[in-house]
Amino acid sequence: GGNIADGQAKSASCAACHGAAGKAVNSIYPNLAGQNADYLALSLHAYKKGDRSGGQAGVMQAFSSSLSDQDISDLSAYYASLTPLK
Amino acid sequence: GGNIADGQAKSASCAACHGAAGKAVNSIYPNLAGQNADYLALSLHAYKKGDRSGGQAGVMQAFSSSLSDQDISDLSAYYASLTPLK
Repeated sequence: GGNIADGQAKSASCAACHGAAGKAVNSIYPNLAGQNADYLALSLHAYKKGDRSGGQAGVMQAFSSSLSDQDISDLSAYYASLTPLK
Repeated sequence: GGNIADGQAKSASCAACHGAAGKAVNSIYPNLAGQNADYLALSLHAYKKGDRSGGQAGVMQAFSSSLSDQDISDLSAYYASLTPLK
């Protein structure tokens, strides 16, 4: 399973677009706060595998390419733990 | 732009997985309530174009294939208008 504290420690790159509190800095990016951890992990694996293209997918593929399975679990647990902000 | 009421009227198929209040019924699906409308629209267009594959993308491609640009705008406005639930 994912470790929330470890996920937070690994989230600096994510925060540039998705916000320090998981509230995206631009509406073309998704908010991550309170999203389901299972879905977040599936999405990161999909980007890493190249299953998503177009739009910002290239950026996400580049970032996710360096993430281990544990990194993905930790990041997903961290963002799922945050309170969603509208 | 999107019309919230029209989006709600068109959301029955979405609710089966993403929940009547935009809170997904299974953690492998994303919550949609309070997500950014621009991101939701980009995602639906990406599924419709076939830019996402793997996992549940086939299901989303099938659903989104019948959506017009206006449908996508309306659905995105509707889900963005809902209060996010953790």
